[in-house]
Amino acid sequence: MQLTPKVKDILSWYESDNPGTKGNLARILMEGKLGGTGRVVILPVDQGFEHGPARSFAPNPAAYDPRYHFALAVEAGLNAYAAPLGMIEAGAASFAGAIPTILKVNSSNSLANAKDQAVTGSVADALRLGCSAIGFTIYPGSDDQFGMMEELRELAEEAKAAGLAVVVWSYPRGGNLDKVGETAFDICAYAAHMAALLGAHVIKVKPPSEALWLDAAKKVYEAQKIDNTSLAARIRHVVQACFDGRRLVVFSGGEAKGTEGLLGEVRAIHQGGGSGSIIGRNTFQRPRAEALKLLADIIDIYKSPAG
Amino acid sequence: MQLTPKVKDILSWYESDNPGTKGNLARILMEGKLGGTGRVVILPVDQGFEHGPARSFAPNPAAYDPRYHFALAVEAGLNAYAAPLGMIEAGAASFAGAIPTILKVNSSNSLANAKDQAVTGSVADALRLGCSAIGFTIYPGSDDQFGMMEELRELAEEAKAAGLAVVVWSYPRGGNLDKVGETAFDICAYAAHMAALLGAHVIKVKPPSEALWLDAAKKVYEAQKIDNTSLAARIRHVVQACFDGRRLVVFSGGEAKGTEGLLGEVRAIHQGGGSGSIIGRNTFQRPRAEALKLLADIIDIYKSPAG
Amino acid sequence: MQLTPKVKDILSWYESDNPGTKGNLARILMEGKLGGTGRVVILPVDQGFEHGPARSFAPNPAAYDPRYHFALAVEAGLNAYAAPLGMIEAGAASFAGAIPTILKVNSSNSLANAKDQAVTGSVADALRLGCSAIGFTIYPGSDDQFGMMEELRELAEEAKAAGLAVVVWSYPRGGNLDKVGETAFDICAYAAHMAALLGAHVIKVKPPSEALWLDAAKKVYEAQKIDNTSLAARIRHVVQACFDGRRLVVFSGGEAKGTEGLLGEVRAIHQGGGSGSIIGRNTFQRPRAEALKLLADIIDIYKSPAG
Amino acid sequence: MQLTPKVKDILSWYESDNPGTKGNLARILMEGKLGGTGRVVILPVDQGFEHGPARSFAPNPAAYDPRYHFALAVEAGLNAYAAPLGMIEAGAASFAGAIPTILKVNSSNSLANAKDQAVTGSVADALRLGCSAIGFTIYPGSDDQFGMMEELRELAEEAKAAGLAVVVWSYPRGGNLDKVGETAFDICAYAAHMAALLGAHVIKVKPPSEALWLDAAKKVYEAQKIDNTSLAARIRHVVQACFDGRRLVVFSGGEAKGTEGLLGEVRAIHQGGGSGSIIGRNTFQRPRAEALKLLADIIDIYKSPAG
Amino acid sequence: MQLTPKVKDILSWYESDNPGTKGNLARILMEGKLGGTGRVVILPVDQGFEHGPARSFAPNPAAYDPRYHFALAVEAGLNAYAAPLGMIEAGAASFAGAIPTILKVNSSNSLANAKDQAVTGSVADALRLGCSAIGFTIYPGSDDQFGMMEELRELAEEAKAAGLAVVVWSYPRGGNLDKVGETAFDICAYAAHMAALLGAHVIKVKPPSEALWLDAAKKVYEAQKIDNTSLAARIRHVVQACFDGRRLVVFSGGEAKGTEGLLGEVRAIHQGGGSGSIIGRNTFQRPRAEALKLLADIIDIYKSPAG
Repeated sequence: MQLTPKVKDILSWYESDNPGTKGNLARILMEGKLGGTGRVVILPVDQGFEHGPARSFAPNPAAYDPRYHFALAVEAGLNAYAAPLGMIEAGAASFAGAIPTILKVNSSNSLANAKDQAVTGSVADALRLGCSAIGFTIYPGSDDQFGMMEELRELAEEAKAAGLAVVVWSYPRGGNLDKVGETAFDICAYAAHMAALLGAHVIKVKPPSEALWLDAAKKVYEAQKIDNTSLAARIRHVVQACFDGRRLVVFSGGEAKGTEGLLGEVRAIHQGGGSGSIIGRNTFQRPRAEALKLLADIIDIYKSPAG
Repeated sequence: MQLTPKVKDILSWYESDNPGTKGNLARILMEGKLGGTGRVVILPVDQGFEHGPARSFAPNPAAYDPRYHFALAVEAGLNAYAAPLGMIEAGAASFAGAIPTILKVNSSNSLANAKDQAVTGSVADALRLGCSAIGFTIYPGSDDQFGMMEELRELAEEAKAAGLAVVVWSYPRGGNLDKVGETAFDICAYAAHMAALLGAHVIKVKPPSEALWLDAAKKVYEAQKIDNTSLAARIRHVVQACFDGRRLVVFSGGEAKGTEGLLGEVRAIHQGGGSGSIIGRNTFQRPRAEALKLLADIIDIYKSPAG
Repeated sequence: MQLTPKVKDILSWYESDNPGTKGNLARILMEGKLGGTGRVVILPVDQGFEHGPARSFAPNPAAYDPRYHFALAVEAGLNAYAAPLGMIEAGAASFAGAIPTILKVNSSNSLANAKDQAVTGSVADALRLGCSAIGFTIYPGSDDQFGMMEELRELAEEAKAAGLAVVVWSYPRGGNLDKVGETAFDICAYAAHMAALLGAHVIKVKPPSEALWLDAAKKVYEAQKIDNTSLAARIRHVVQACFDGRRLVVFSGGEAKGTEGLLGEVRAIHQGGGSGSIIGRNTFQRPRAEALKLLADIIDIYKSPAG
Repeated sequence: MQLTPKVKDILSWYESDNPGTKGNLARILMEGKLGGTGRVVILPVDQGFEHGPARSFAPNPAAYDPRYHFALAVEAGLNAYAAPLGMIEAGAASFAGAIPTILKVNSSNSLANAKDQAVTGSVADALRLGCSAIGFTIYPGSDDQFGMMEELRELAEEAKAAGLAVVVWSYPRGGNLDKVGETAFDICAYAAHMAALLGAHVIKVKPPSEALWLDAAKKVYEAQKIDNTSLAARIRHVVQACFDGRRLVVFSGGEAKGTEGLLGEVRAIHQGGGSGSIIGRNTFQRPRAEALKLLADIIDIYKSPAG
Repeated sequence: MQLTPKVKDILSWYESDNPGTKGNLARILMEGKLGGTGRVVILPVDQGFEHGPARSFAPNPAAYDPRYHFALAVEAGLNAYAAPLGMIEAGAASFAGAIPTILKVNSSNSLANAKDQAVTGSVADALRLGCSAIGFTIYPGSDDQFGMMEELRELAEEAKAAGLAVVVWSYPRGGNLDKVGETAFDICAYAAHMAALLGAHVIKVKPPSEALWLDAAKKVYEAQKIDNTSLAARIRHVVQACFDGRRLVVFSGGEAKGTEGLLGEVRAIHQGGGSGSIIGRNTFQRPRAEALKLLADIIDIYKSPAG
């Protein structure tokens, strides 16, 4: 496989990683309809853990079967598929080689009070299942944040030594943070930056709102006139916060929403220089044909010239 | 031993497991009177830990002797026998090869306040005792749920690598859950799904009630018209929540109850597509002959064409 | 050494243990004046840890020297001597081969508030000191009970793999238990049963009182007419709770008491089928000659035909 | 490379270290414009973790790119560059051999309530990235201080065995300490001394204020007439507290401040016998040319004859 | 080196230790002016950790330099020198072979609220630094006492396997203990006994006061007429509590006090059969000549025939 100059350039950002990890990043970046463009669309299916099976799959019951998601990701021409242990185990052999997979190695659920997650998979699991990366969530700001970061440190060290890539879901939550704080502009950029400092290869955050939350940060954002008036501008700042754009930064779709709202968000991500979308509920809860149409439209946006 | 097409099909669900684990699952599925049907009846004897010896065995004092349960499971033609370390050690050599065993590796007791269990056995124990699987209880919703899931993760990884199967008792308990919540329809399906996501080969839950507990889930169950009006329908949904029926799901008998109530429950499990029953107190607390009769009746139900 | 049929029968109860562990159990069972009878008298000296040196040894100052206890156990013709690390280290070489020793690997003290113990010895210590077994205390019911059981699990696994025997002191304490509960009939049987389930070879409990403590248990004890009117009857039930008598169950002497009270208790243990006595303060706090006389009387009871 | 007599003398202070560690200390001491003088200026960039990306880098956006800091440190002729994992990974290959690096292996953030840090890097990371040292922060006085010291102990032992140097940021914080206490004269000297006792090769503290905080210490400072009237005198005492000046002690610049204030502080450090400055925000938040000018002025001070 | 009969006798107390540990005990017992007498004087310098540098060293500033203490111990003809990691590292090569050293592997500080210590050194450190023993503090009675004892257990096992000796500082503190309790006669004897049970070779306690603290102990002390009227009598009982005098028991000097008070205390220790003194502040806070004179006087007392 001949890597494109764009992908070669992205790999150069990860200058301290071994060829194994670079190879797995390349595998993700070269896969599917966006292969070689430096943009990615990833299908994550951990909502069964987070919200329960019926809330996740009843709107489209075919999605109860783990193989549905592998097949959807392959047919839609996505870059990768991310899910917890059981979901990957249930299709990894059938779809071996068909699509890069990301083993999500920690998860929370709707019955929990603590702002924490359980570690539910390992690097050894990722290797035996042929995954290209592990995925890990941190909750910056939560009372358990240091413990989560230390779990990530240990897993990431092991993953990198084994030639895997590391994808970090950085979701501010808990502690002093209220609902506004969780998606505030400064907090989102801070969360993304911390994921980069922790050694993530790919950083997943939510699209930031206009709000500024930490007083000390607000002063700087205002003094330095950091533009928070459009989503594209905010995306651009979050990407800048990730080593001046030298890390892959993908944005989640968040709650199921209307197609137009979603595509508008994707356009802003694209315009702001985001690396792509990681989008679950908005796809697998629709009938398969609609999901494929939506993913094709998203991919078309990322293929178009940016903003 | 020639595996039946049904068992071969079930083994195909576990496509990421090694031949050792598949062999142990096959051993359980091919054993006893239901051997080859894809249905199972398992004898679990951990009530001594949970409720104490007299509450468990005084109604039928022969059951104080661990060898009684091995012999009962063999004579009744069951698929497997599950018990804590001491119970297995006390008969494993005498009954080596006579019946697949499941080492229950964690346990709670009636003196505990915490909604947690102590880890009381290991994979090394299971291997030296010739067991086919380990059994582990999680309490989704409890304050200790993440710790329990992490213990399971570690033990399950080790068990799978050693060619053992993993049976998960998923019993919602503690935290915000009240008594209704513990067996509510949505919560039971959620607990079963989480066990599947954690990589369980066999999932044990309680038969769900009609109640819907989480508000966010209730909306979806009503909007999607998920049938909660019969036990068979509820069983069918729980099985669907386990990877669309691609995991073995067995149901506990719960408190000792009348024979007719019990058989009715078994019929509903059978009709709803459950994989079988795991039934303790209702058998070993009866005189041996009655227990054998009851187990024969249960097995007959599972052998009959499903509703 | 020719094992007696009685000892051979006892060893058959431990059918899953390796020859090393069976050999160490045999060593204890064949030692001293009760050697070969299946009954045992063991000298435990951990009161220095539990109550302090003066409360333990000032009544008989020769007992401050650790070698005193080795010599007493040997001269009295006991089956084994149990003590914490420092006590064993101080005499293990001088008395190598003279008497089986049990390394008590956890201990509490009178300054503690928590119902827990510190782990103070290891399997490696037991091996280098030539011990036949490790001893470990659990406090069923305490807030720390699961942690204690998990420490036991780990140490017991290691001990069994190394061919050592495992003796468990099962002392209900803490949590919801009051003073009555700690020695209540149902609780004592429950504690003994849990030790058996945890894989103990030898179970040490206190002689149970008449009280019934857990409501749910009380109903069963009354319904099943379990005899609690004599100590011998209660002993019999505790022994039954230990795998129908297929585990060695020894009873502690408890607080120092009059000779007649003590011998009466021993007669009841013997009559009820207990495996013997583990008796400390009542011996080493007396002048040596009196202690030897008392131990000889106890041994005579255990040698007589059981009630 | 011919070591200067001054550097050879400093290395002699570390008489128990292996040649690997001495070599890495020499590498730092011989690097840059101060090479061989026994004084050092180090660039630390962990403010992104501590305060967030915009507060750290928005005043000089070129600093968002991790390579900016490597280049700045090289061009300014500094002795070393210290940063968290992600920052080092992003430039370690490009700048391999160009400047000694210190991997900062723990970090806190502005969203945390606990006075603690997360361990975010390892000795294995430092080795694979070609670093000369690890850096670790302790918070003497905090509720988590013992845990932090134990993490340091473990990492320092591993680092020293691997031939790396150990730099300790010793910042009193939390527990009974108020804002005055955090920088009080006695507390600062105490914190520096504890870092020395913990085996640090290089100790980083804040310049102490005049305040005396612990009553018991205050009495001694007054009785012994320890001079607290000038910063140079206070620096001299802190250096004395580090094994009578036989450890490298560097002082942080603290909050961004005016150029003159900063240079005055540096003159006092120099006059008091401090080993140098570790200075971040005051450099990388200025335009590059200004930062280079400032660093050249600081270096000139350290090159001049002391006080 | 020809061991004296007295030292040979002491070594015989440690009959379960390997030749490496016996050799290190012999090294300490044969060193210095008391070499071969069975008595020891040890210099401990951990006050910098406990109280801070100025409170420890400002009265005699030469003592800021770690080499001062090595030299003082050597010149005074002491048996050993004990200090934390950094202090030992700073002189271990210069004084290699000149005096046995004891690495103090845990420490507290005056900023701590918890009655606990941080582990700050390891057996590997002790070995690479050529130490003869590790030193460890426990706080019997504190809320963290079990954790501290478990840390000691692990370190002591490792130290003994490596041929090192184990010195335990047993200082009752925290929990229910008030200031009177910390040095009460019964509590001091209890603390010393627990150190012996934990496997200490050398036990360090404070000289006990007349007070009796635990009610249950007080009854026994009064009934058994244990003499608490002179310090010598109390020392004798503490020594008896350490395996009837078959462990080395040394007493700390405590707070700096007048020379006569100190020498009187030493005479009582000698008269009561204590093994010697471990004395820090009272020596290194005096001018060197005075310290050497004082130590010579102390040594003379221990050389004289005991009371």
